Amino acid sequence: MRFATYLRDGQPRLGLVLDEQLIDLNDAQPQVPPCLRAALAQGVDLMAAARAAADDAAAPRLPLARLTLAPLVPEPGKIICLGLNYFDHAKEGGRDKPEYPWFFLRGKSSLVAHGAPGVRPRVSERFDYEAELALVIGSTVPRHVTQEQALRHVWGYTCFNDMSVRDYQKRTPQWTIGKNFDGTGGFGPVLVTADELAPGATGLRIQSRLNGQVMQDANTTDMIWGVAETIALLSDCLTLEPGDVIVMGTPAGVGQARTPPVWMKPGDVVEIEIERIGTLVNPIVQEA
Amino acid sequence: MRFATYLRDGQPRLGLVLDEQLIDLNDAQPQVPPCLRAALAQGVDLMAAARAAADDAAAPRLPLARLTLAPLVPEPGKIICLGLNYFDHAKEGGRDKPEYPWFFLRGKSSLVAHGAPGVRPRVSERFDYEAELALVIGSTVPRHVTQEQALRHVWGYTCFNDMSVRDYQKRTPQWTIGKNFDGTGGFGPVLVTADELAPGATGLRIQSRLNGQVMQDANTTDMIWGVAETIALLSDCLTLEPGDVIVMGTPAGVGQARTPPVWMKPGDVVEIEIERIGTLVNPIVQEA
Repeated sequence: MRFATYLRDGQPRLGLVLDEQLIDLNDAQPQVPPCLRAALAQGVDLMAAARAAADDAAAPRLPLARLTLAPLVPEPGKIICLGLNYFDHAKEGGRDKPEYPWFFLRGKSSLVAHGAPGVRPRVSERFDYEAELALVIGSTVPRHVTQEQALRHVWGYTCFNDMSVRDYQKRTPQWTIGKNFDGTGGFGPVLVTADELAPGATGLRIQSRLNGQVMQDANTTDMIWGVAETIALLSDCLTLEPGDVIVMGTPAGVGQARTPPVWMKPGDVVEIEIERIGTLVNPIVQEA
Repeated sequence: MRFATYLRDGQPRLGLVLDEQLIDLNDAQPQVPPCLRAALAQGVDLMAAARAAADDAAAPRLPLARLTLAPLVPEPGKIICLGLNYFDHAKEGGRDKPEYPWFFLRGKSSLVAHGAPGVRPRVSERFDYEAELALVIGSTVPRHVTQEQALRHVWGYTCFNDMSVRDYQKRTPQWTIGKNFDGTGGFGPVLVTADELAPGATGLRIQSRLNGQVMQDANTTDMIWGVAETIALLSDCLTLEPGDVIVMGTPAGVGQARTPPVWMKPGDVVEIEIERIGTLVNPIVQEA
């Protein structure tokens, strides 16, 4: 199944995506809350609701291309990101293979939906893209979960563009501020439930394209820490809750590692495509 | 005015604190939502509601000491922390005076209320305390706000214990994971509105005590970046929203910088006291 969050009268609503159409799940199945995090936290059977909506010939089908999407989880609890999770990206930054993931957090105020602009800030021109696989936690993960048990808590996968303001990222050893500018966390377009992909979403080609030119081209199998191992490591430290998001790191080919460096500028269009999931598109604008 | 969040039937409710008593603001003034973040986001006039509740002789007064408190903002949008914001603490860690704040984020799953246990995790014994001033944003901060305009967006101040798992904090250059274990972000007990303190909450003695022994003893005037400057710096990057929390860093005297190091262990009691605000108390327990 494929889900999306779209805006109606400025409010996020959850939809089931069938080909190029969307059924408003909140209309079709009123027990489903409009926020994906709330739906998961309340244990609503979204798969059953989606099947019922799909089988309902009377449920209106909205053309997906005409809708305004919202970030896939409008109110995530935590957004946990991994740095340096592809060895070739660590190498292009002059680093060794890390021995533990470089975790940092994003706040929800940094998120942008598919189709919405990525915002180059006033204070920097060093605005870079990062193609990443993201996952949404579906049920509370017990502390110290094993890798074998970890994947049952993943509800689905999507694309993320971990747009980075490189000089702020490197002003101190803490990358956080360079990863939390407004309008820099591209998130979507759709969530594909875990049952439709290989365990841990391995074996998927992942690309970024800037103005149509391929900038990153890798495979999710190349991640140093896979999804199950990442969840197990995190569960030694904290509780992963329904609606939490994990963003799995980026492969080689980022703009800052090129000679000369490539920075995104207003008028550019950046795409993140992951095989069998979809393509996240964000035009770049200048902060007003 | 002083506010607290307490639990009734397991659900957080907002209270006005008068001396050692609490008036349930959700009962006394039903237009006030139970979550402080929602109240601030909706622009509810909490000061007027608090005055009306205080003037209502019929409103029940609950003895504060008998209530179970919740984290002051149960669902903050962002929790932004500053590292190395007191020069003497930077020095005790062998570092120079930083040129920009070392920002990192906490997730809400790390928060614990006044009176609730700080949890030493299974995976580490290097469990440290950090006394910090915290503030709650009351209204959306415009991007690129000036220092002169910044403080009008601060709704109030409280105590924070930025309990840290030091070996995880230092496993990679990103401190985030060592700052996000469950049960490590002491937050409370009460919020004191900004009008009751000096601008930016300067001039306040701040202490941590472990089992009654003073471990940190400093003054908020010693912060490298004050509250107004911190808000102005952050506003160059992101939007601070109602209910966001900023945690202002810790002075010298942490356990890891002592010879020999001092680590918190089960049975300990840690207190953070800030003059004119209150004392945050957390017993330390071992993760089950």
